[in-house]
Amino acid sequence: MNISELERVIFRKKSYLCVGLDPDIQKLPAHLPKTAEGVLEFCLAIIESTAAFSVAYKINTAFFENLGAAGWKVMSVIFEELTKRGIYSIADAKRADIGNTSEQYASAFFEKLGADSITLSPYMGQDSIGPFLNYKDKAAILLALTSNPGHIDFEMLRLENGKRLFEQVIETSQSWPRLGDLMFVVGATRSEEIQNVRRISPDNFLLVPGVGAQGGSLEDVSKYGLTEKGGLLINASRSIIYAGQDLDFAEKAGHEAEKLAKTMAIYV
Amino acid sequence: MNISELERVIFRKKSYLCVGLDPDIQKLPAHLPKTAEGVLEFCLAIIESTAAFSVAYKINTAFFENLGAAGWKVMSVIFEELTKRGIYSIADAKRADIGNTSEQYASAFFEKLGADSITLSPYMGQDSIGPFLNYKDKAAILLALTSNPGHIDFEMLRLENGKRLFEQVIETSQSWPRLGDLMFVVGATRSEEIQNVRRISPDNFLLVPGVGAQGGSLEDVSKYGLTEKGGLLINASRSIIYAGQDLDFAEKAGHEAEKLAKTMAIYV
Repeated sequence: MNISELERVIFRKKSYLCVGLDPDIQKLPAHLPKTAEGVLEFCLAIIESTAAFSVAYKINTAFFENLGAAGWKVMSVIFEELTKRGIYSIADAKRADIGNTSEQYASAFFEKLGADSITLSPYMGQDSIGPFLNYKDKAAILLALTSNPGHIDFEMLRLENGKRLFEQVIETSQSWPRLGDLMFVVGATRSEEIQNVRRISPDNFLLVPGVGAQGGSLEDVSKYGLTEKGGLLINASRSIIYAGQDLDFAEKAGHEAEKLAKTMAIYV
Repeated sequence: MNISELERVIFRKKSYLCVGLDPDIQKLPAHLPKTAEGVLEFCLAIIESTAAFSVAYKINTAFFENLGAAGWKVMSVIFEELTKRGIYSIADAKRADIGNTSEQYASAFFEKLGADSITLSPYMGQDSIGPFLNYKDKAAILLALTSNPGHIDFEMLRLENGKRLFEQVIETSQSWPRLGDLMFVVGATRSEEIQNVRRISPDNFLLVPGVGAQGGSLEDVSKYGLTEKGGLLINASRSIIYAGQDLDFAEKAGHEAEKLAKTMAIYV
């Protein structure tokens, strides 16, 4: 699925909810085996119960890699399932390397796994991101301002030109080819930053984590982040996928997703 | 293997060569199958023929991920082989994410795969790196100044305080706990930068790519990078592993590694 189709889905479903699949094997409901198979069953059930209220899923690769080759296989089944359902998929992989290596990552995630998009670290610059943007109808999601405490260490550093590093990342990449296929991660913990980011990047999709648990306001993020075409994905992971711990975990996840989507429907 | 042991090996072998395993399936010698099995056979033969002259291997995860679950399995066999041989291993994975996700990556690479160290992107700050440093006898290798063209986009940006971003990354991380288990990637393309980095970080190991093909001088890097305890790993990937294209590819790789090690022996 490409970004134009994602935009249409957002207005059709009246939701811009992205569900983050970070399946920690230690946190699975007790009745599921703590194995790669258990993780697959868990994720498929979450997708089934939340798909009506969400427009995208973010697959956190770390949780699958920690299950070894079997985890990678499970991850590929999940991407297949999303493709089959026509749901937008994000590989939350935080990759990027020198050109020939980024080409391998792009092939791994876009061609082999079938992901629609991937999160990338901007540190190594344009030629580490370019190979991902070379794929038509696939998107590169650049880390800009993250919601973890460490965002103050480097992302917020003030440059000689008066801008902060994350602002410069967004500004510099505005001149890269295929700008329309670029999204940015912008944490919701300080929603005035969303407003600020929209001045530098009026059109790019923003993927916003940190609403809810980490304190960001869904209302503010929606107000400042949405564009005429949509342009916004708000991610919720743990608050949805661990909403329940029993046999009805998927149902509870569905309720949480529905609650968020109902608020979103006010804005879109 | 921990860093102290690596130091001893450097002086015993009189080499600080790291061989980079970036096995592009399209570049395998013609007699090997273009499959995960072919990649495994290729890598094991390269290790066998170069182990006498090198002290570490850097496994580039992208090339294995592009082979799917079978590639991940091959990668785990290679780490096992290095552990069995008592050779220092680097997962060149360029990871790092929020704390609970970095914990999963650390477990995946240090516990499940048995890597001795992993390359990490500094962008998200201290709490994205901390989970890797929590492992005793494992090392975190932070990207500082890379050798790709895109290093000018962000790494070289001048901050308000007059420092460049990559210098600030090294300086800031000097105050993090377990500093001794931190290494830095510093590209060799401008060897005067190695001298500069040594002023900010007198003791940390430097992992230096870009010698040879990319134009860095082995002599300059050695002169400026080495410390009394060693403190330096110079990586060569393509110039070694693709030195030959025929049945004798491993022998040719061995010759290339030997040549580099002979020059290194002058300095250590």
